[in-house]
Amino acid sequence: MPVELPDGVFAAALTPLHPDRSIDHPRFAEHCRWLLANGCDGLAPMGTTGEANSFTVTERMQALDTLVEAGIPAHRLLVGTGCCAVPDTIALTRHAVEHGVGGTLLLPPFYYKNVSDDGLFAAFDQVIQAVGAARLRIYLYHFPQMSGVPIGQELIARLRQAYPDTLAGMKDSSGDFEYMRANLQAFPGFRVFAGTERYLLATLRAGGPGCISATTNVTAPLAGQVFARRGWPDADGLQEQLTALRMTLEAFPPIPALKALAARRTGHADWRTVRPPQVPLAAARLDELVEKLASLAGADTLEGL
Amino acid sequence: MPVELPDGVFAAALTPLHPDRSIDHPRFAEHCRWLLANGCDGLAPMGTTGEANSFTVTERMQALDTLVEAGIPAHRLLVGTGCCAVPDTIALTRHAVEHGVGGTLLLPPFYYKNVSDDGLFAAFDQVIQAVGAARLRIYLYHFPQMSGVPIGQELIARLRQAYPDTLAGMKDSSGDFEYMRANLQAFPGFRVFAGTERYLLATLRAGGPGCISATTNVTAPLAGQVFARRGWPDADGLQEQLTALRMTLEAFPPIPALKALAARRTGHADWRTVRPPQVPLAAARLDELVEKLASLAGADTLEGL
Repeated sequence: MPVELPDGVFAAALTPLHPDRSIDHPRFAEHCRWLLANGCDGLAPMGTTGEANSFTVTERMQALDTLVEAGIPAHRLLVGTGCCAVPDTIALTRHAVEHGVGGTLLLPPFYYKNVSDDGLFAAFDQVIQAVGAARLRIYLYHFPQMSGVPIGQELIARLRQAYPDTLAGMKDSSGDFEYMRANLQAFPGFRVFAGTERYLLATLRAGGPGCISATTNVTAPLAGQVFARRGWPDADGLQEQLTALRMTLEAFPPIPALKALAARRTGHADWRTVRPPQVPLAAARLDELVEKLASLAGADTLEGL
Repeated sequence: MPVELPDGVFAAALTPLHPDRSIDHPRFAEHCRWLLANGCDGLAPMGTTGEANSFTVTERMQALDTLVEAGIPAHRLLVGTGCCAVPDTIALTRHAVEHGVGGTLLLPPFYYKNVSDDGLFAAFDQVIQAVGAARLRIYLYHFPQMSGVPIGQELIARLRQAYPDTLAGMKDSSGDFEYMRANLQAFPGFRVFAGTERYLLATLRAGGPGCISATTNVTAPLAGQVFARRGWPDADGLQEQLTALRMTLEAFPPIPALKALAARRTGHADWRTVRPPQVPLAAARLDELVEKLASLAGADTLEGL
């Protein structure tokens, strides 16, 4: 049996770049270590926030190699491996499993739209069969606003039935809490992580394991408190503060804004570098964001603000 | 100066597969030769219809190698090279240019939605700078229904201004003929191909070069007649027949239906193989499609019906 991915707060880890837009590996390891030391129970590198689809397959593998070599516990990693081309998904998933990761996060093949459940099932089935590892744990990545390919309950049911051990859970970035709750109820043992810390406490109370979020790259210290205090009377007040931070961050382009905040926290200006089609956040927008965050009750938890 | 991509009828060439879903290279070359001998002036391999995004970068390069080695004139090829990750787009575009292709067809990076023109400009700019070839001819691939990333007039204008020779044209698969006409008018010399043979004659009359279509994998013989007769009184009648064929084909899932028709025409059942998330067309649906096509006035132009 593989060591299970922990419950709790996950950051969809940002990928720091050099000015030439290649990955800054030492800084990537440093950021991931900082997240785990500051409220995160696990990390989801190479997701949407990590600009995964802006990297080649080789670059994505090298990024994971870096984390494992830096001593990040592999079972705390939920690595994004879902591509448009099934052979790419297979290569990345196999590589992640060989590193002993806690799970792999799979987008459906996302170029073609309005595809059938048969087609999506065939894609996931091909990956699972090709990787062929008992320790493979797949989390479905539901983010219809970005992928354009929703993952419906019938498909989940079918995959769970075919692969009850492998189909471990889902990251639901749709923002639709009722859908998350419905899936937690419909599929006992299916680990649905909320894609936003806004629903962290609500997800835990609905029986879910936690959240995986872009903005926990910044809010992890407070999100970690919410998770730690989940059984206590002060949890709701902390969640309220966390939600306010999240809602403020949400109003800005996430990747550029989060990278600009990382640059501010660490003093490394290169952190602002993104890959196209992202563009760096304008300095005035960062000032605006910082001012808004600083006015909130949870601001004292934000390092380097 | 590179030899220019011809005007006329292009097929977004299907990619035949073996039963294990690897590319059947000899059959790919054979199909492309058949298209050029049966009404096509050029080919757009590795587009949406060619299931390009379901193949790895290496597989895509090998497919192009096959066509060039088989003697398909490279200047008649408009090769799809646009990926989510700019380094992949650069690698494929460079490879295509080294083969002397008539043009490369670039999707914008299509994972992230609601991105800015600045971000899209940066992506195309990075590709053009990295490939750095005077003979590079880029055609923008506008297919918002599939990519989720529209290409607006302001972006075209900006790219044309920065790279007047390189930004050669567009394949417009939006189905919005007014947008095609507007771009032909707004940008003299910009070669806007209609993404459907339904608008072949209308595009030619609006000053456009022709069409690039999925369904010309089947309708090429008639489409070629429309192009050949474009200055003659019978052109409208031929276009009417062509449109009827197209509209009938459009009601079926394009890739599986076109592959099923290719299987029928050639007698090779493996032609029906697709990559997920596509699924093969059910036999009953093929019968239905064949019956509908056979009832149309242009049916005598369809080989092997």
